[in-house]
Amino acid sequence: MGEQHIERRARLAARLGDRGLDALLVTRLINVRYLTGLDSSNAALLVRAEGPAVLATDSRYAGMAAQVAPELEVVVERGTAAALAALAADAGLERLGFEAHDLTVERHAELTAQDGGVAFAPAGHLVEEERLVKDEQEIALLAEACAITDRAFAAVLPLIEPGVTERAVAVALERFMVDFGAQGLAFESIVAAGPNGAVPHHHPSERPIGAGELVTLDFGARYGGYHADMTRTVAVGEPAAWQREVYDLVLRAQLAGIAAAVPGADTVAVDAAARDVIAAAGHGEHFGHGLGHGVGLEIHEAPLMGYDETGKLMDRVPITAEPGVYLAGRGGVRIEDTLVVRDGGAEILTQTTKDLLVL
Amino acid sequence: MGEQHIERRARLAARLGDRGLDALLVTRLINVRYLTGLDSSNAALLVRAEGPAVLATDSRYAGMAAQVAPELEVVVERGTAAALAALAADAGLERLGFEAHDLTVERHAELTAQDGGVAFAPAGHLVEEERLVKDEQEIALLAEACAITDRAFAAVLPLIEPGVTERAVAVALERFMVDFGAQGLAFESIVAAGPNGAVPHHHPSERPIGAGELVTLDFGARYGGYHADMTRTVAVGEPAAWQREVYDLVLRAQLAGIAAAVPGADTVAVDAAARDVIAAAGHGEHFGHGLGHGVGLEIHEAPLMGYDETGKLMDRVPITAEPGVYLAGRGGVRIEDTLVVRDGGAEILTQTTKDLLVL
Repeated sequence: MGEQHIERRARLAARLGDRGLDALLVTRLINVRYLTGLDSSNAALLVRAEGPAVLATDSRYAGMAAQVAPELEVVVERGTAAALAALAADAGLERLGFEAHDLTVERHAELTAQDGGVAFAPAGHLVEEERLVKDEQEIALLAEACAITDRAFAAVLPLIEPGVTERAVAVALERFMVDFGAQGLAFESIVAAGPNGAVPHHHPSERPIGAGELVTLDFGARYGGYHADMTRTVAVGEPAAWQREVYDLVLRAQLAGIAAAVPGADTVAVDAAARDVIAAAGHGEHFGHGLGHGVGLEIHEAPLMGYDETGKLMDRVPITAEPGVYLAGRGGVRIEDTLVVRDGGAEILTQTTKDLLVL
Repeated sequence: MGEQHIERRARLAARLGDRGLDALLVTRLINVRYLTGLDSSNAALLVRAEGPAVLATDSRYAGMAAQVAPELEVVVERGTAAALAALAADAGLERLGFEAHDLTVERHAELTAQDGGVAFAPAGHLVEEERLVKDEQEIALLAEACAITDRAFAAVLPLIEPGVTERAVAVALERFMVDFGAQGLAFESIVAAGPNGAVPHHHPSERPIGAGELVTLDFGARYGGYHADMTRTVAVGEPAAWQREVYDLVLRAQLAGIAAAVPGADTVAVDAAARDVIAAAGHGEHFGHGLGHGVGLEIHEAPLMGYDETGKLMDRVPITAEPGVYLAGRGGVRIEDTLVVRDGGAEILTQTTKDLLVL
């Protein structure tokens, strides 16, 4: 991965001059990881418009930093951002961009209190912009995370039956993901049966699944740092007419959303493509969240696809499409895939069937 | 838990007047959870010096909020902090404290741009101060997390042998924790064998464990929101003299640290009690991190116990004690317990033996 990180830093450095920045102080840990390969809980990176970048981390990660980024100068200090700001001042840099969406008011006050003659300027989401479009190596890692997710779903299906608790299903699902090679969970799994299905972010409970209920499973594996995200709703026993009706509606909405997710599409329009299907059936108020979100080194990242998020999709941007209908007290349906927006048409990475499974 | 949350908010509210605050805008999610019971990825809480608190969250968590905190007014908005700031302005509040260690420069700029006549004031770590001393119900949850951790360690021991990879051990360990009732991992497990043991935060790799190596396992279960943290180093085959020597040294240091961890003790002195033992043996430079940290709703929380962290321990404060010696290229030893500082002497929650286990 070393070459990739060098290229990423070069691309970023090339954008700094235009913004009047001598350097960018990267403090978001996931952005430091993207630019160096270092996965740590304390690090910062100084990317200069001209000259080599400098990484700072504390003693716990110093060895790891030398391993993943042998080409980088590494400053070993607990106060990583402060150390790099001091170094920038010593180097005579005048205008230092910072990540205003990461740096807290408290840390910002500490940095600006260091009198080094450096001017701090909020620099926008420069690294996140670089992260938006994935290279094929990143997409391959994401595809592997999705394949593990598909396999875990297939493995857990035989365990879903009346009397089994939501939590038991979640535990089994998570175990299968690890068995199949996940390097962790993309997020805490949701298993929501019957009326709990009306709560989009329900925590798996000790409530046993009942016959005739819909069960929504929302989960994903993490692999090589990349996050899969998939949701399926299954029926335990022959579904009632209303259950099948809602299922078919959500599926139609999801397919409409995916069809709209082409390079150049406006994210609001993609959300609307799915939302309009649900609204036309009179369930608009029962779909209270956005259609989806970008996935990559974070489970939720740009672009967000909601009814008030502006943005454009591009080739090689992985996203989720996950409409739902939630009927308080009765239950809910959500269907979600992880897919990659492509010039030649969406590449669906989660490949589990979307036919309503009746268990 | 409802009663507990009401009391916590009352204690917090009672401290606001003295600081000249009409209200505190709580944006740190873990602090919102502490004060309301709501575990979500988007929420904020307005705690007033006088009058009822108001919770804000988005539609995904609205149902959950009504369940866990039925006594609270809940505002359902995606921009949770902005909604509460507007509400504070409408209510005529003049001075609104905020969490400068959580609010980013970007979000702070958004809030202060809303012209509502409210003055925003950094309010310090008020909620974290409340969280420092745990009640017996919290300690019971932490003790259960530690008991699960102990059981998982015992269960994984028979699997540790030459040829097994670090990753296989980590996977098994994590599976046992879930089997024994963990509601998640406290953090990503560390399994570090041979030379990898010299990297304090090593990620479990595909490297097989070799005969004659030390293996360090650092892991913990999460239960009821509370985080266990334990480290043991074991020997695979009869240890060499240097391995046993380093082990004994680290154990003596750990016991000295625990003995010093009494109510009223200065955290620097507690760290020094352990560090001095290691330094006296000539390994001072091989112990590059702090002695330990508080644990609770977060895996790392106040008090930090390092060589430059000021603070005092108190009755009912759970901490870790985790000295280590790391010899680059050769290996390392770390021994860690989760314990509760008590008036009557430390209560060790992780109860696995600290005799050097030879497998």
